Amino acid sequence: MPELRQDPVTGCWVVVAKERAKRPYDFIQKENNPVQICPFEYGNESMTPPETLAFRPDSLPPNSPDWIVRVVPNKFSAFTPEDFEETLSDGLYKHRRAYGAHEVVIHGPDHDLNLATYPVAQTTQVLKAYKMRYSYHKNQPYGKYIQIIINHGKKAGASLEHSHSQIFAMPLIPQLPKSQLAGAADHYDKTGRCIYCDMIESEIKDSDRVIERTENFMVFVPYAAKLPFETWILPSQHRPQFEEITDSERDELAEVFRRTLRRFYIGLSNPPFNMYLHTSPPGYERLESYHWHMSIIPKLTIAAGFELGTNMWINVTIPEQAAEFLRDVKTGESG
Amino acid sequence: MPELRQDPVTGCWVVVAKERAKRPYDFIQKENNPVQICPFEYGNESMTPPETLAFRPDSLPPNSPDWIVRVVPNKFSAFTPEDFEETLSDGLYKHRRAYGAHEVVIHGPDHDLNLATYPVAQTTQVLKAYKMRYSYHKNQPYGKYIQIIINHGKKAGASLEHSHSQIFAMPLIPQLPKSQLAGAADHYDKTGRCIYCDMIESEIKDSDRVIERTENFMVFVPYAAKLPFETWILPSQHRPQFEEITDSERDELAEVFRRTLRRFYIGLSNPPFNMYLHTSPPGYERLESYHWHMSIIPKLTIAAGFELGTNMWINVTIPEQAAEFLRDVKTGESG
Repeated sequence: MPELRQDPVTGCWVVVAKERAKRPYDFIQKENNPVQICPFEYGNESMTPPETLAFRPDSLPPNSPDWIVRVVPNKFSAFTPEDFEETLSDGLYKHRRAYGAHEVVIHGPDHDLNLATYPVAQTTQVLKAYKMRYSYHKNQPYGKYIQIIINHGKKAGASLEHSHSQIFAMPLIPQLPKSQLAGAADHYDKTGRCIYCDMIESEIKDSDRVIERTENFMVFVPYAAKLPFETWILPSQHRPQFEEITDSERDELAEVFRRTLRRFYIGLSNPPFNMYLHTSPPGYERLESYHWHMSIIPKLTIAAGFELGTNMWINVTIPEQAAEFLRDVKTGESG
Repeated sequence: MPELRQDPVTGCWVVVAKERAKRPYDFIQKENNPVQICPFEYGNESMTPPETLAFRPDSLPPNSPDWIVRVVPNKFSAFTPEDFEETLSDGLYKHRRAYGAHEVVIHGPDHDLNLATYPVAQTTQVLKAYKMRYSYHKNQPYGKYIQIIINHGKKAGASLEHSHSQIFAMPLIPQLPKSQLAGAADHYDKTGRCIYCDMIESEIKDSDRVIERTENFMVFVPYAAKLPFETWILPSQHRPQFEEITDSERDELAEVFRRTLRRFYIGLSNPPFNMYLHTSPPGYERLESYHWHMSIIPKLTIAAGFELGTNMWINVTIPEQAAEFLRDVKTGESG
């Protein structure tokens, strides 16, 4: 059972992922990466735990091929829904079970395509799966916070190369979203405004960092981007909850998201990247102050001793130059 | 001039390192790593900025060969001492110059040795250089916080393979040390005790995570280790300030530090690793509550979308197993 342990100094929680655990000796030899059968392709459905969601023709049974998008529990879960447990204290140290869920959203059946190269309809289905699974986990007893991410490429931490997202649902709000929520609520208390709405207004005025605007979405490099080419996608109007997205907004987001990924794919030659989606946690009461957004960060540099020791980032690319570069990429009309 | 930019939501500062900056196009082509002349070897002293400290026979001039340990400003500084500037506000966004210093401590002249393989006398000289440069920066107007780190190996972020440390001095306390200082002060207010002293006592009692104890130092894997094999070295007695280390403590630390690095070097086949040293910032008034320590973390996994999006870590190694493994490594008596 994976476990949460609390750092007694900072109060931050760490997942000790016993299910994913490697024995110390596993780290000694370099992995040879033997050719493996991909569990995310048609015909290999039994290699994953039974699906929790899939889009396929109604006539076909669950866990059969011919799905469009498929969601399965992670075989090596960082969070598991099995047992709730209160925080236990062990003198100075506190721990609790890593109660929650950890799922994989398989973006499609083709091993060689990804969200930059599939037709946009595929992205739409992925966003639909995000929304459905988000809404499911939100209503579970462990659903205090839900983190949707993509790790694309081995250097960005993907253990399987077949294009996929991951959904983590957990019983507490981790520190980065917590400090964002607090900072945004504080800004609202001072100004009566959502800070993300203020940023959008400021970015429109001073357009150096804007990559793209559509009817309902903005894409820009944030002013204090922590890493080269960090890019945000946000709804232009105040939208605190991703799961409240309408079908037409979702379809527009699919276009914008795919085009943004194509800027990276074409401009930076299919770089490894990470994506994470920040949205108001389930039950959040300060919805006037928070605004959902996606961050996409290509993995081009290595966070090292300075970042580990300080939690402060050194960005070796000037945000305005990164935005100019991404803005100018010719994304093409189709995959 | 490098710049600090403040994230308007969280209040965290990011260094936009214009001196280190890469143009967007630099990221497109894979680096071919042409064979380069190493600026850290004897005879190449003019390839670095003029040294700020070196240990060599008195008869020899600065910036000549035959040094034992040499400290130079980083050629691509993240912080520069040139101009102080107040925080400037640009509407929603705040920035200031990255006022400070950024130095490299070259561990020795031999390109093929490192702190696990040099004789221990070399480590002693490196620690002496740490203390001298720390004490220098502490007394500069920018010296609000000083971070000493090692990046060893390309995968751990080292841009030059020749063994070296880096010292960053800056005009503000970054968020991780700030939250550690606050957590430790809070513990002191509640209990009248230093939390690190409490951890040491607890680790001694429950010795699963202890790797080694010497007269004045403890080496253990912390309870909530954020990454596999994370290892701390701490003085066993309450010592808030690294720069107050005595010569005999320093000599003992050199032995302990080198032996710890040998556990990694031998046990995990010279893995890439990061080291950072946390100590009370200059002028800190709650010295009763903080305790300096070194963290050494081999780079065996990749922090990915989950960690970037939440600042929460998933550790795939159980701390007690990591400690047992490192404890059992035969470190040998000499290099």
